[in-house]
Amino acid sequence: MDDIHFAVLGTGGIGRRAIEYSSSKDHLVPVAACDRDGVAIDHEGLDGDELLAATEGNIASDGGATAVKQTGEQQGVVASAQATPTETPIDDIIAESDAIDAVLIALPNLEHDFIPRVAERFAEADYEGVLVDVLKRSRVIGMLDDRAEMLEDSGITFICGAGATPGFLTGAAALAAQSFVEIEEVEIWWGVGLKSGYEDNRGTVREDIAHLDGYDIETARDLTDEEIEAIVDDHDGVIEFNDMEHADDVLLERAGICDAEDVTVGGILDVRSDEKPTTTTVRVTGRTFDGERGTNTFELDDATSMEANVNGPALGYLKTGVRRNRAGEYGVFGPAELMPGF
Amino acid sequence: MDDIHFAVLGTGGIGRRAIEYSSSKDHLVPVAACDRDGVAIDHEGLDGDELLAATEGNIASDGGATAVKQTGEQQGVVASAQATPTETPIDDIIAESDAIDAVLIALPNLEHDFIPRVAERFAEADYEGVLVDVLKRSRVIGMLDDRAEMLEDSGITFICGAGATPGFLTGAAALAAQSFVEIEEVEIWWGVGLKSGYEDNRGTVREDIAHLDGYDIETARDLTDEEIEAIVDDHDGVIEFNDMEHADDVLLERAGICDAEDVTVGGILDVRSDEKPTTTTVRVTGRTFDGERGTNTFELDDATSMEANVNGPALGYLKTGVRRNRAGEYGVFGPAELMPGF
Repeated sequence: MDDIHFAVLGTGGIGRRAIEYSSSKDHLVPVAACDRDGVAIDHEGLDGDELLAATEGNIASDGGATAVKQTGEQQGVVASAQATPTETPIDDIIAESDAIDAVLIALPNLEHDFIPRVAERFAEADYEGVLVDVLKRSRVIGMLDDRAEMLEDSGITFICGAGATPGFLTGAAALAAQSFVEIEEVEIWWGVGLKSGYEDNRGTVREDIAHLDGYDIETARDLTDEEIEAIVDDHDGVIEFNDMEHADDVLLERAGICDAEDVTVGGILDVRSDEKPTTTTVRVTGRTFDGERGTNTFELDDATSMEANVNGPALGYLKTGVRRNRAGEYGVFGPAELMPGF
Repeated sequence: MDDIHFAVLGTGGIGRRAIEYSSSKDHLVPVAACDRDGVAIDHEGLDGDELLAATEGNIASDGGATAVKQTGEQQGVVASAQATPTETPIDDIIAESDAIDAVLIALPNLEHDFIPRVAERFAEADYEGVLVDVLKRSRVIGMLDDRAEMLEDSGITFICGAGATPGFLTGAAALAAQSFVEIEEVEIWWGVGLKSGYEDNRGTVREDIAHLDGYDIETARDLTDEEIEAIVDDHDGVIEFNDMEHADDVLLERAGICDAEDVTVGGILDVRSDEKPTTTTVRVTGRTFDGERGTNTFELDDATSMEANVNGPALGYLKTGVRRNRAGEYGVFGPAELMPGF
């Protein structure tokens, strides 16, 4: 496959790590990055090291650093010598999108329809390429589906929910399902230890809190950092989630694997340790064509970080999306739909 | 996706079960089947039940029957009322291949280049569609690659090794690899308990014996059934295999997952019990982008039969192949190449 020139919208934890991650692979070339105040574009390839070093946050790879970098008065991407301030960062990237094969949308948890509306703007500009998000919420899928025709007309292949969950783990469920002709249950259970990455992943923690009893995405968005700290303290830093509204269910139903109601998602987040509090596991229980019942299991090693399990699959699905896009397949796809599947 | 009309070359264990399996899904329609002496073709869809009932072998789904069915003087597919005798079964199917979306090649272990030559015959007839095999041997891949241009020119999407291993398990390895930027080792370990399926899967047992010390594919082919029984007896019915020449290694290298030499394949076959003698497991060890080392694991439930784990993936990859073919992607693909992958 030829080089893939990709852009990153948002330079928080996920966006920055996508740039870092891509340096491990020759054919993935980051050419644009933006946050709310600035944009960096270089179609020959951004200098990822410089951009990451100049950008606020924990970019150390030893898992131990928590330093927050800030250069002068500017914070975020404009601290990079490659970036310029702008009030229209996404439009600036759209303006150059003819030369961009794929866009990773790694924006913080804003309004529900924020990412669908970003997709709409790319479609209005007749973008032909791939958009990938790492969202987790079920309801966004429907909003994207409402725009499917518009995306198809433009020539956009939109892959939604391509991070660790739903992306990686629904992919694993779709694979594990291949022993069976009928799926009874898919159980997705994750463990995240986030001590050293906490500063860098506040958006993720905030989004997780929205799944707790008494909170929703709106109330979680309005929480101050201090209020979030208080919630974390109440749980001694270890928060368990059950029956989460994760898009895993609708994405597995879309892919024809099982009914949404047969999917359960839960997990444990520990923001005070880098050790995972529980092992991330996917269990798929079904009936074989010859009448047996069994459970296939996929387990991630506790040593693999959330960051590795978000960014690897996100860029893997991005690459697959480019292949699909070049073959003329447009519209909205969930990760599990990109898997071989009976 | 529209209905997929597929043919099966070979009505041994794998071919028959593909027909049985497809009855669980509306959109997979078996329209042709052949063995060395006969062919059955009905573009409206074969009557799978009749064909299976009339065909020699164990087709019971309770896992307990070992009856060998035979009708009159005829055995094999011609025992079906839908079939006619022929001396050119494959050519007869090629002659009708305009109306066939995909062909599952489930032929017994003949010469090394037998399946590549079958593919060649389809290409010579300008077949546009999907060919799928469930081969295990590494060296066949090269022979298919030699014919890649011919297959591409014809419009054929050839998916090789799409059964349990390499197909299902290299797919799992490709998925599990997504946590890592560098793979150190892929260990594939299978367990098969084949008591009730033994009669129906002699070809598979013969092919496995070719992996034992002192045997190769040629000497195994020339063994009489009595000699195979003697080998099985020598091992008290439980045969362990190590460092097998399975195509898993070359297929994972093709897909860019790891070097072939980093892949090991082994397993245990028990022909005297339906219980698996060991759990089928895929272990992928690698290094994450943030410097950790870990092992992701995929395990099949012991209750899932070899047949379920061959035929589910084979038909899953067949379906994926049709999607690729309709999108204009032709040539030779390993299963792991059809997975999302960084």
